[in-house]
Amino acid sequence: MQHLIERVSHLVARLEDRLIASRRDFHRHPELGWTEFRTASLIARRLDALGYEVALGRQVIDAGSRMGVPPDGILESCWQCALREGGDPHYMEAMRGGLTGVVADLRSGRRPLVALRFDVDALGVQEAADPDHRPAREGFRSLHDGVSHACGHDAHAAVGLAVAEVLRQLRREIVGSVRLIFQPAEEGVRGARAMVQAGVVDGVDYLLGHHLYSSWPLGEVAAGMGGYLATTKFDARMAGQPAHAGGEPHRGHNALLAAATAVLNLYAIPRHRQGATRINVGRLDAGTGRNVIPAEAHLVVETRGATTELNDYMYACAKRVLEAAAAMYECQLEIVEMGAAASGSSDRALAERVEAMARQIDSCTVRAPEESGGSEDFTYMMTRVQERGGLAANVGLGANLGGWGHHTSRFDIDERAMGVAATLLSVAALELGGGR
Amino acid sequence: MQHLIERVSHLVARLEDRLIASRRDFHRHPELGWTEFRTASLIARRLDALGYEVALGRQVIDAGSRMGVPPDGILESCWQCALREGGDPHYMEAMRGGLTGVVADLRSGRRPLVALRFDVDALGVQEAADPDHRPAREGFRSLHDGVSHACGHDAHAAVGLAVAEVLRQLRREIVGSVRLIFQPAEEGVRGARAMVQAGVVDGVDYLLGHHLYSSWPLGEVAAGMGGYLATTKFDARMAGQPAHAGGEPHRGHNALLAAATAVLNLYAIPRHRQGATRINVGRLDAGTGRNVIPAEAHLVVETRGATTELNDYMYACAKRVLEAAAAMYECQLEIVEMGAAASGSSDRALAERVEAMARQIDSCTVRAPEESGGSEDFTYMMTRVQERGGLAANVGLGANLGGWGHHTSRFDIDERAMGVAATLLSVAALELGGGR
Amino acid sequence: MQHLIERVSHLVARLEDRLIASRRDFHRHPELGWTEFRTASLIARRLDALGYEVALGRQVIDAGSRMGVPPDGILESCWQCALREGGDPHYMEAMRGGLTGVVADLRSGRRPLVALRFDVDALGVQEAADPDHRPAREGFRSLHDGVSHACGHDAHAAVGLAVAEVLRQLRREIVGSVRLIFQPAEEGVRGARAMVQAGVVDGVDYLLGHHLYSSWPLGEVAAGMGGYLATTKFDARMAGQPAHAGGEPHRGHNALLAAATAVLNLYAIPRHRQGATRINVGRLDAGTGRNVIPAEAHLVVETRGATTELNDYMYACAKRVLEAAAAMYECQLEIVEMGAAASGSSDRALAERVEAMARQIDSCTVRAPEESGGSEDFTYMMTRVQERGGLAANVGLGANLGGWGHHTSRFDIDERAMGVAATLLSVAALELGGGR
Amino acid sequence: MQHLIERVSHLVARLEDRLIASRRDFHRHPELGWTEFRTASLIARRLDALGYEVALGRQVIDAGSRMGVPPDGILESCWQCALREGGDPHYMEAMRGGLTGVVADLRSGRRPLVALRFDVDALGVQEAADPDHRPAREGFRSLHDGVSHACGHDAHAAVGLAVAEVLRQLRREIVGSVRLIFQPAEEGVRGARAMVQAGVVDGVDYLLGHHLYSSWPLGEVAAGMGGYLATTKFDARMAGQPAHAGGEPHRGHNALLAAATAVLNLYAIPRHRQGATRINVGRLDAGTGRNVIPAEAHLVVETRGATTELNDYMYACAKRVLEAAAAMYECQLEIVEMGAAASGSSDRALAERVEAMARQIDSCTVRAPEESGGSEDFTYMMTRVQERGGLAANVGLGANLGGWGHHTSRFDIDERAMGVAATLLSVAALELGGGR
Repeated sequence: MQHLIERVSHLVARLEDRLIASRRDFHRHPELGWTEFRTASLIARRLDALGYEVALGRQVIDAGSRMGVPPDGILESCWQCALREGGDPHYMEAMRGGLTGVVADLRSGRRPLVALRFDVDALGVQEAADPDHRPAREGFRSLHDGVSHACGHDAHAAVGLAVAEVLRQLRREIVGSVRLIFQPAEEGVRGARAMVQAGVVDGVDYLLGHHLYSSWPLGEVAAGMGGYLATTKFDARMAGQPAHAGGEPHRGHNALLAAATAVLNLYAIPRHRQGATRINVGRLDAGTGRNVIPAEAHLVVETRGATTELNDYMYACAKRVLEAAAAMYECQLEIVEMGAAASGSSDRALAERVEAMARQIDSCTVRAPEESGGSEDFTYMMTRVQERGGLAANVGLGANLGGWGHHTSRFDIDERAMGVAATLLSVAALELGGGR
Repeated sequence: MQHLIERVSHLVARLEDRLIASRRDFHRHPELGWTEFRTASLIARRLDALGYEVALGRQVIDAGSRMGVPPDGILESCWQCALREGGDPHYMEAMRGGLTGVVADLRSGRRPLVALRFDVDALGVQEAADPDHRPAREGFRSLHDGVSHACGHDAHAAVGLAVAEVLRQLRREIVGSVRLIFQPAEEGVRGARAMVQAGVVDGVDYLLGHHLYSSWPLGEVAAGMGGYLATTKFDARMAGQPAHAGGEPHRGHNALLAAATAVLNLYAIPRHRQGATRINVGRLDAGTGRNVIPAEAHLVVETRGATTELNDYMYACAKRVLEAAAAMYECQLEIVEMGAAASGSSDRALAERVEAMARQIDSCTVRAPEESGGSEDFTYMMTRVQERGGLAANVGLGANLGGWGHHTSRFDIDERAMGVAATLLSVAALELGGGR
Repeated sequence: MQHLIERVSHLVARLEDRLIASRRDFHRHPELGWTEFRTASLIARRLDALGYEVALGRQVIDAGSRMGVPPDGILESCWQCALREGGDPHYMEAMRGGLTGVVADLRSGRRPLVALRFDVDALGVQEAADPDHRPAREGFRSLHDGVSHACGHDAHAAVGLAVAEVLRQLRREIVGSVRLIFQPAEEGVRGARAMVQAGVVDGVDYLLGHHLYSSWPLGEVAAGMGGYLATTKFDARMAGQPAHAGGEPHRGHNALLAAATAVLNLYAIPRHRQGATRINVGRLDAGTGRNVIPAEAHLVVETRGATTELNDYMYACAKRVLEAAAAMYECQLEIVEMGAAASGSSDRALAERVEAMARQIDSCTVRAPEESGGSEDFTYMMTRVQERGGLAANVGLGANLGGWGHHTSRFDIDERAMGVAATLLSVAALELGGGR
Repeated sequence: MQHLIERVSHLVARLEDRLIASRRDFHRHPELGWTEFRTASLIARRLDALGYEVALGRQVIDAGSRMGVPPDGILESCWQCALREGGDPHYMEAMRGGLTGVVADLRSGRRPLVALRFDVDALGVQEAADPDHRPAREGFRSLHDGVSHACGHDAHAAVGLAVAEVLRQLRREIVGSVRLIFQPAEEGVRGARAMVQAGVVDGVDYLLGHHLYSSWPLGEVAAGMGGYLATTKFDARMAGQPAHAGGEPHRGHNALLAAATAVLNLYAIPRHRQGATRINVGRLDAGTGRNVIPAEAHLVVETRGATTELNDYMYACAKRVLEAAAAMYECQLEIVEMGAAASGSSDRALAERVEAMARQIDSCTVRAPEESGGSEDFTYMMTRVQERGGLAANVGLGANLGGWGHHTSRFDIDERAMGVAATLLSVAALELGGGR
């Protein structure tokens, strides 16, 4: 393996400038989930150029399984914007309407099939503009108001392209096959399910995901992240009937009272013997004018559970609470699922193999894996692979710049972390794929 | 009229001892609503003896329209108790099972038909035992633990019997006909509806009720009491599923959470443009042990409204709230109506005639009628008479002993008030019935 | 009086074009409460030119008694906008910072003092743009996005100017004195209190207000509007502590749970024996992201009562509920009063005099006054005048165009109603002021 | 050890009749927590007779640390009842007022000190009377209405006496010292804290508790029971102000509304990252009459947590919720702690030693220890011993008769289980105490 590591390290070192350039280009043009037209089309073009077998759009996304898709008008205007900003229309055509996944294969006709997953979407966070924030200081701050890569998926995408270069060059070392999966809409856990439903992880023997953490020291590697909570993200709308609050209070069907009743009872859903559960109503917006009985309420909710079954329990209870609260005030209720993830954990056996590799890479230091307490839709892919006999693991990598957390306006990474990630993932793909 | 008043006053003066004896006898043997077997049978026997045409049991009570009827076992044991304490089995037989109304007619075949209503039931209040309380001091305190005549219906019944004597003696002065209605179960507004449904006020031209008030000076008369709120009294039971609160909290269907949700939302039923509304959950009892998810909740509720329509609005809203709250926690809901009264007010024209009579009776002083703010099921009788073109009024009479209010353990009256009441009501019956 | 009516009618007929021009000018440049810099400065200039003694700014507004004043930045940018759109800087200077009241006097040194009040502010309603809506079709639609005269105060202001002209010309007919009060910020009942506190109705013997109603037929007059509910408008902000809903739910101080608890208990504030009460939470906006425990909640609330005391009761209860709900979740609470009105009714004696005048004016038809069920801050002025021995009445006038109600995007009036209003109010001022 | 086991088994076999007689005597005279005057005095007399050093009353109970103590009147009438039923006044005197603990020592002046704990109180469960229930059939059914040994503490006490006999006879085999602790008021987790505070487990090197389980097969032994949840049991009383619900609703301070608000928000206390939490409001009783605003509410509550810290978090939150809810309705709040237990688990090392002994006893079969999910106040004793360097374990023993669970009216045990328990515990005390 040592020889392999040296060859990979050498190649990655030569790619360092390109890694940074890619990341910064993606960073300037951040795109929200299901609108990654520019990002995905440029990824597809590069993979195509490298000789990968590239699949796009409906080939890799089951449209009906997507969650939290923006309205058509938004999708189209984002598509136009991507075009203006240099997206490649050749690849964008198939993505129209929010089908922004890309899968690239190096097929050999042999097993094992090793798959790596990279998520590429940005977040609805306004990026800081002052010179203390490096992207602002060095001119690659987000061009899009209110949207930024505040979770590092710009780097994930760039790492994916670098891994693609390395594996292409070392193709002959791989006995089996390799698949690179570029996933849209990870934020809000909206995208993975649609790719799983399209079959992109079927037949995979080894599946690796990865995530950079700005709060871990550079180079630290936790190969077997786990403890992801299953989750359902959904919006609930209650529609009642307005009335003048002074003159005709009895004529109203008060959607705010329905919503307030629901909120209290949602948080009161009983704890479950079998493990941790969570619920949150992250937003409630109700009513119009001060003197009008509120006729509309909009709740932004999520449930979680230590297992998929526990989350299902929470979600079923939540629906019952919402239905009853709406009925109490003669309101119409509409529930729309906006995202979901399964529970999941890395396979220990696979994690240990990756750790063993990391120990031989100079730039890596192995740290203990963590129990997340949060959710990640990579679990859908892991679960599918595990159910069919494969092994899956999610790898955390340190990218510390200190101070600012994920999803904040000043999130940033140490760009050297991308080289570490590209090295480790390339080595892992080669090693798992039969190289040595 | 003056001559008539003198004759009536004379007769009532001779009945004074009997008035007191009757009242005290009823007072010692108080009977709760629908169990007035002894009281009603002795009334019936006396009226029969006086030559009235007496109707009983199913003739004057529509059994299915009764509300808040005790369980069969209680009815039967009260019947046996009444027998032991001197009730007349001849009349009690027809009352078995809680049919404790009595109606007595002096028919002439001519109009007008003047009806007087007397309520006869006691209350679930423990009577004071110390010598400051006259019934205790003078030996006619309630023999029944936890039951007493704390609202003066013992006196109402005695007044009714005295009026019966007077009218019998002055029968020839009456051009029309007279009907005396002895109503059970006024407390909790449970009885009037069943008598109205049995037709006892059909064809009545003038209807008078009366009530003694211990907080008004002796002799004060308010002839046109009004402003009674319509009301529905009901109990709601929620039945969920118990579970061990430590080990299996998710298995419970929490009837207390359902009830608490209902309570908050019941009080939050919107005010109504058209007038005053009320709701109260007077009792809530839920759960068993500390470590068991509560599987049972029992709510004791009442709604009210300035009009019958407003009360209907409140009751409909309350049912919807309870149904939704039960559904929210997968509880079974049972609602049982325990009592009801219509809104109602006295006819001003009739009240003025009674006031005019009162002004000519020495022992009476006219005071302004009051708006009640409470409820009284005599409204059902008033409304029926008014709907069919008759006139109705409820007469308040002062019986002050000072200090202790209705429904308290020390409620008492100045027994001289009974003579005033018997005089005024006899005069009114004669005068309205065509005598002079 | 007939002669006076003829002279007034004649003068108003000549002012008709100017009435329409004024109204349309105000309509194109609508200004929200406390920002009526252009409107008020043009009114002041005209009254000054007519020879009225004009008082402005701090002379007629007690700054500290204002409610619902926009932030300084908004006040200043509205001031600048008013300047650009033709406001008169000479008068605007004294109004800077939201002191937009104007009072104009014709003083004679003699009583009685007759005062008329005109409200001049616009509303936050987007005006319809399609040609079915006359202001759009005829080119005087609001120039300000999201702001329009959807309650007819543009017409009230124009009527005020026409009355000023008439009274100036017939000045010699007035024995006493006349005061014209142009009030800002009636919408949200924010302005009258500050003018009353500045003393503008002190010493007034007769006070008249008026309002056009687009739903009444043209020319109908109801001189004694009443039944206004006292009201307090306030905003409540709860500030808790955010936390990640999956990872650290116990660290949050959940402002949404506090707000939901408050909402339920606000609506559950007990009904009051003494009369009608109201409460409404017209808006609730809480929280940020789906997976964050909500740390902020904003409630937009109003209480009302049939009397000022009943409203005080509701407001005191509401504050207690909000404080306790905030404490329950360790949230900070801030309550800001945004508006208020007293209860109030017109004096019947004054209303009858105005009705008598209206019966002699050809264009007027008297209709019965209405009980409002809503609120109006003119009650502050009425109450002050009534407390000090004067008489006050609010006059409703029909201005029907059919169909679209007040506060809607298509509200409009039949402009002929302005002439009717100007005639009636001028006649009333002259007649009450001692003319004949 | 084998020899020791044989000697113990032989002794226990001879005690079998006495074991059954003791258990049945205790069973007939069940005594609720803090009133075990008869039970404890007979235990003390027997231990005294056997030559143990016996400590009683305030020597072994810190009176102020007791929880859920009945009112003085009840304590006294139970004391009198115990006297009538054969309690020994010599020992009962020191127990007066609810000081019903007994501790018996065999001191050698040498370590180790081995302590065994036996709980002796009964439950508020009505025992079945039909002949299918053996205690009824065989004449030792509870003499006390509504009280019975439905959790097997009668057997625990009898086992304790048998162990005392055995150890007394084999005293010379013990190198160290032995302490037998007879604890009152385990039901409701009310008693252990007061004994710990009195120091009864200070200096203990090995502490064993035990519990018979009627649902496990006879002879099964789980030596290291754990996963006990920390818990606080408390009652909350809210006192408001009554008012007539029809006439004066605004005058009430509604304790039921306060309680309902509390209930909803108690269940909504946020989950905690660090582990399982629980809350339950097992009972709510509020209000009196249907037409009275409820002025009293009584809540019976418990919190739990996987650790003592998690339970403290729940209890602190619960108090804040209750205080705020009471304040919201101007109610007085009183919270009384009724019981508490720490979290806790058996020491694995000690459990393994006991399991090793059990494997050598013919009548025992080792089963895996269980995670409880419930609470047990033996944890206070375990925690104290563990904090001071000792080892503690709780031993479960099968006593199956099938079908009826703990705390039901038909709970019973196979009485042979007592011999198994006495054997195992005696062997353990000897073995841990240095015998062989």
